[in-house]
Amino acid sequence: MQVNIELIQGKDRNYKVYIDELGKLNFNTKVAIVTNPTVAKYHLDKVSRLINANELHIITIPDGEEYKNLDTLEFILNECFKYRLDRKSILLALGGGVIGDMTGFVASIFQRGIDFIQIPTTLLAQVDASVGGKTGVNSKYGKNLIGAFWQPKAVYCETEFLKTLPKREFNAGIAEIIKMAITFDKEFFEWLEEHNLNNGEDLKTAILKSIETKARVVSLDEREAGIRAVLNYGHTFGHVVENETEYKKYLHGEAVSIGIVMANELSLKLGLISKENVIRIKYLLQRYNLPIDYKIEDVENFYEHFFLDKKSNKNQITFILPKEIGGYEIKKNIDKNLILDVLKDFE
Amino acid sequence: MQVNIELIQGKDRNYKVYIDELGKLNFNTKVAIVTNPTVAKYHLDKVSRLINANELHIITIPDGEEYKNLDTLEFILNECFKYRLDRKSILLALGGGVIGDMTGFVASIFQRGIDFIQIPTTLLAQVDASVGGKTGVNSKYGKNLIGAFWQPKAVYCETEFLKTLPKREFNAGIAEIIKMAITFDKEFFEWLEEHNLNNGEDLKTAILKSIETKARVVSLDEREAGIRAVLNYGHTFGHVVENETEYKKYLHGEAVSIGIVMANELSLKLGLISKENVIRIKYLLQRYNLPIDYKIEDVENFYEHFFLDKKSNKNQITFILPKEIGGYEIKKNIDKNLILDVLKDFE
Repeated sequence: MQVNIELIQGKDRNYKVYIDELGKLNFNTKVAIVTNPTVAKYHLDKVSRLINANELHIITIPDGEEYKNLDTLEFILNECFKYRLDRKSILLALGGGVIGDMTGFVASIFQRGIDFIQIPTTLLAQVDASVGGKTGVNSKYGKNLIGAFWQPKAVYCETEFLKTLPKREFNAGIAEIIKMAITFDKEFFEWLEEHNLNNGEDLKTAILKSIETKARVVSLDEREAGIRAVLNYGHTFGHVVENETEYKKYLHGEAVSIGIVMANELSLKLGLISKENVIRIKYLLQRYNLPIDYKIEDVENFYEHFFLDKKSNKNQITFILPKEIGGYEIKKNIDKNLILDVLKDFE
Repeated sequence: MQVNIELIQGKDRNYKVYIDELGKLNFNTKVAIVTNPTVAKYHLDKVSRLINANELHIITIPDGEEYKNLDTLEFILNECFKYRLDRKSILLALGGGVIGDMTGFVASIFQRGIDFIQIPTTLLAQVDASVGGKTGVNSKYGKNLIGAFWQPKAVYCETEFLKTLPKREFNAGIAEIIKMAITFDKEFFEWLEEHNLNNGEDLKTAILKSIETKARVVSLDEREAGIRAVLNYGHTFGHVVENETEYKKYLHGEAVSIGIVMANELSLKLGLISKENVIRIKYLLQRYNLPIDYKIEDVENFYEHFFLDKKSNKNQITFILPKEIGGYEIKKNIDKNLILDVLKDFE
């Protein structure tokens, strides 16, 4: 199965996401695979054997979000120089979101930009990072604050690779699938309620559906001026949760799950969503063991954290709120007290 | 005077270079000026007074090419976060090429891209860095090996600012003007032979002419796939000279001057340029006290250095050679022995 990613602002950067179609890859250039030891153990041999290149190099970085920073970026860059990669060389990201985001960012700045290919090995990366061209690293001031928009040349999603994923990480990926359904596609949400993503065929359908949905959104708004911001549903709150817990306690998808629940409470207070739909969403998240609660220590402090998030222009916070199921509203200038009321429910 | 920079691959990124037209600048956003102490001493007060912004911050980095690296990049980024710049904020580069290249690079990766404006204060930066959108930093493996293409929103060249430049730095800028004339514009070269750039009006004309020439080239080839490579005339050799002398002995324009002389010798050996024209060029460079000689310690070592240069794809070196005056040839696969012969003349 294939999804065409079409970018209206630059047709030369269109590419395809292939689902379960990974075969021989032939390159008349140098190729470097960027991966980590965990992923390498399961999938590197297989992927290496599929690659036919002038030279094939392996760049291994430590596993974990805490290494998604400028130091690791410099390490990858130096490996590229050491192997004398040039402007025609291709980077191949083999791993989850951290590997994909960092490899894409290196590709965007190595000699002012080279090509890269993604082979996402987590569910989250397959449904989320595979489309959109967002690359980057974290800074001590927040997540993904340094980066570039840089599109891959192709993305290969192999559902087989997901079999080695820890259950918890698999479920975290489902949070992003649910997120997409809530704001963009009521039918898909209902389909999710009726199916079980632990079933291989249903999983494949859900991945395809998620990628198609994200592709539609991104193609309309590559640089996140409008509708693309809706993909951040659950992320405004979720980023603060990740930040407060230093990216250690929750996987990204888990933090998004909490963020979805928090955003829904705000939506409920504003009369945008019914209590019933809030509960349906919670129920679906819980079916995949996703967290729906979080203990806020200090609501003022939590609130302050919003303002370092890069989505908050001119010190305004933008909230993406569900409008029942299948719709959304982009809200600014929400009264601080109303937000504090929501946060207090989590104290 | 104004020059329109038109980029055929993306009209939304077109901008103007203004010559001696700097006036009040009004912004409804936060602005941060990136500069160094040397430039700040002469020009910061004047520029600051012209800016009307929601907040104005000053980010000062040390003066010198040796600070054009990832560490300084991270310092600037952290200053931006500290001042809570957001996606609407604007960076203003006040300084020479190092400041412009680094500020542009930060602008390209801060929150995945914000606007920047350039006020180049050296002749080199006015005629070269002001057009083309090349941004970046050096790595220990070579010059400008890490970076991005990122266009400014506007460039203000003030010839008045050049009056505080050390004579040596002023002359180094003239090397790039001469470079442009040799490969693209015979009439301009002859005009340069007949005029003296120490005269204010002639200088202004030469700056305008250089910017127009570069703009024409860049608009045809923003990402350096073809003709834009010709702007690297003198740079293939020049970068090795800079590298061998660790960016300490020569200013960039001086290294380019040496590189021009070396490239001309190769061109002469290939019968592309007459001895007479080689001498005319040397004479023009010497009039501005630009170096035309360099002692190569080890020709094999010098030759090896070419291959780390980012312009050398697949281990081929691309040489930009003058075809008499006003023309050029892009040559690959030149026999190593022929190049060594040229290099031996400099032993």
